[in-house]
Amino acid sequence: MSTFDFNNHSHRRYNPLTRSWVLCSPHRTQRPWQGHRESAQIEKRPNYDPTCYLCPGNQRANGDHNPTYTSTYSFHNDFAAVKSHQPALPDTHDDLLRAEGVRGECHVICFSPRHDLTMAEMTVPEIASIVDQWTDSYERLSQKEYIKHVQIFENKGAAMGCSNPHPHGQLWATEQIPQEPQVELDALKAYQQDHPDGCLLCNYVKREQREKEEQGRIVMENDSFICIVPFWALWPFETLVLPKDHVVSLPKMSKQQKLDLADMLRRITCRYDNLFECSFPYSMGIHQAPVQGDYEYAHLHLHFYPPLLRSATVRKFLVGFEMLGEAQRDITPEQAAARLRACSEVHYKHRLW
Amino acid sequence: MSTFDFNNHSHRRYNPLTRSWVLCSPHRTQRPWQGHRESAQIEKRPNYDPTCYLCPGNQRANGDHNPTYTSTYSFHNDFAAVKSHQPALPDTHDDLLRAEGVRGECHVICFSPRHDLTMAEMTVPEIASIVDQWTDSYERLSQKEYIKHVQIFENKGAAMGCSNPHPHGQLWATEQIPQEPQVELDALKAYQQDHPDGCLLCNYVKREQREKEEQGRIVMENDSFICIVPFWALWPFETLVLPKDHVVSLPKMSKQQKLDLADMLRRITCRYDNLFECSFPYSMGIHQAPVQGDYEYAHLHLHFYPPLLRSATVRKFLVGFEMLGEAQRDITPEQAAARLRACSEVHYKHRLW
Ligand SMILES: O=P(O)(O)O[C@H]1O[C@H](CO)[C@@H](O)[C@H](O)[C@H]1O
Ligand SMILES: O=P(O)(O)O[C@H]1O[C@H](CO)[C@@H](O)[C@H](O)[C@H]1O
Repeated sequence: MSTFDFNNHSHRRYNPLTRSWVLCSPHRTQRPWQGHRESAQIEKRPNYDPTCYLCPGNQRANGDHNPTYTSTYSFHNDFAAVKSHQPALPDTHDDLLRAEGVRGECHVICFSPRHDLTMAEMTVPEIASIVDQWTDSYERLSQKEYIKHVQIFENKGAAMGCSNPHPHGQLWATEQIPQEPQVELDALKAYQQDHPDGCLLCNYVKREQREKEEQGRIVMENDSFICIVPFWALWPFETLVLPKDHVVSLPKMSKQQKLDLADMLRRITCRYDNLFECSFPYSMGIHQAPVQGDYEYAHLHLHFYPPLLRSATVRKFLVGFEMLGEAQRDITPEQAAARLRACSEVHYKHRLW
Repeated sequence: MSTFDFNNHSHRRYNPLTRSWVLCSPHRTQRPWQGHRESAQIEKRPNYDPTCYLCPGNQRANGDHNPTYTSTYSFHNDFAAVKSHQPALPDTHDDLLRAEGVRGECHVICFSPRHDLTMAEMTVPEIASIVDQWTDSYERLSQKEYIKHVQIFENKGAAMGCSNPHPHGQLWATEQIPQEPQVELDALKAYQQDHPDGCLLCNYVKREQREKEEQGRIVMENDSFICIVPFWALWPFETLVLPKDHVVSLPKMSKQQKLDLADMLRRITCRYDNLFECSFPYSMGIHQAPVQGDYEYAHLHLHFYPPLLRSATVRKFLVGFEMLGEAQRDITPEQAAARLRACSEVHYKHRLW
């Protein structure tokens, strides 16, 4: 029999950050699709919408009016999932019905006054002001003693449960480290204990740079950041954006690193939009050091989890086997990276031909 | 300050089966929803569709014709995610780029010849023949030495990525135990080591039966099975169906237990359809002992993961914070159980008034 071919034979790949497996079935993209289709995100939006509760000057659900803001604008979520004040829940000491109270804060961060302007069409300085806003919020929240973790994220597009199309991100700060970052932190810590010479993500960056030619999972780089479709990617066009040097959190980044992060954000979101010529949906978020304690082993990184698989309307469903058995993907990470590399960094709406 | 109220204050609950946390924000259902709406599954389907590749007598993608089957019918998936023959992948001995080859089989199980008949409207004897088919397949596959695990599941509805509306389930058998059952098996084993008197799920059933009055997470029971919205449920109307006695796998079940399982399947799917008067989407699957080796500590159970939250068209999205931080739910499991208990076991389409 011939030799094993990652582009044709089923295999599972190990995610060392979450210490879990992903099944990859590369031949499976050929199956016919008669299932659900998303509505493609190509409607034209006005740059101001009088009914939008995020646009400047408009009224919010709680009765407040937004200021006539001109850059990014952050406020407390009117429907916060966690709140700063609630009664304490005494420890249940129960191994079957175990619960903990969760206090915290939820913020909304409007990227710009414009109702129609996503990161993919913003300039680097405009995006840099989002990065500054994230950094400020992280720093301010780390002064509150009861807050242990700050999760910054963006849900983009109706397909990703976004409930308002005005480009915005969210921040949920909580008195515990949530499940997913805790799992990653445990893995980073364990790796460092086994490899006194270095960090899992530092070593992974070096490894991908070394194997660039054969494997090609790198989408693009600049001086301080790199964007990779990780070897263990789950979503079809998932990417990992990370600093080449070890950086634990946003406040530890230099001015140049922040600009380089803004540059990466512009370029990856623009490539995403160009892939299927639509406003590409995704959930994106930043993992970094928790705000209390010593997390020198944390390596800041951003995950992009986009659902589309074949076109602007056909997504990957993580259902059935994925929920009950094991996460599963169709195209290989290497194929996805090649397609993203082939995308332009000029937004399709602004092309001159 | 007043005392902690699980129906009003944010908390996280621990899932002892997967050893992970779920954030519960019960007050959050009040937020307005301007996001995506599903198309409600209320179209009338014919009982035979000449273009359906699952209906009796019709041609499939690979050119074969289905027999004119009259009960359940199982065949090899024409677009299998895993295959029985492929070259071996030598161990990569690599802690950053780690992969394993995966051989296996994928089967499709048509529930009945009828294109329009879901479990919610089938009779108990009709569903019992699905349970028999599952048992047979599990037994036959356990004779193949390279197969280690058999995952039986159903994706129902376009919202759950189902690519053909003819009611059917799937079975993916693999040469490794997939991630999710492995995580559960590890937890069951660890629990038994700490509690020589019993099994996590046996004890959980007893606990829920004891707390029935105050807590009310039990939806319904029959002689051998119980259906619970587990304390740690993630999806709004998630349920766990499990035998009251310790049973490791389908072939170990008595004839009566299989009938009781069929009865449970009919009643829970019927209640689900009645909840929002639509064909209720879900992914469902069976966790049981792997097919090779000694797994006396396994306790067979079925998970139902349904996405709908507020109505036939508004679902819960597990995005953003859920993907990057921690799984999150809005209504409490106790509220969900109360609503499912209030649903009839007569299908809304068949009501006489
Ligand atoms: O096999 P199907 O029904 O074509 O596909 C469906 O179920 C599979 C198994 O859960 C998933 O991997 C697919 O994403 C989903 O669309
Ligand atoms: O807060 P939003 O935008 O109203 O809601 C969206 O993001 C939240 C955080 O990821 C999710 O919990 C919701 O399911 C989703 O619809």
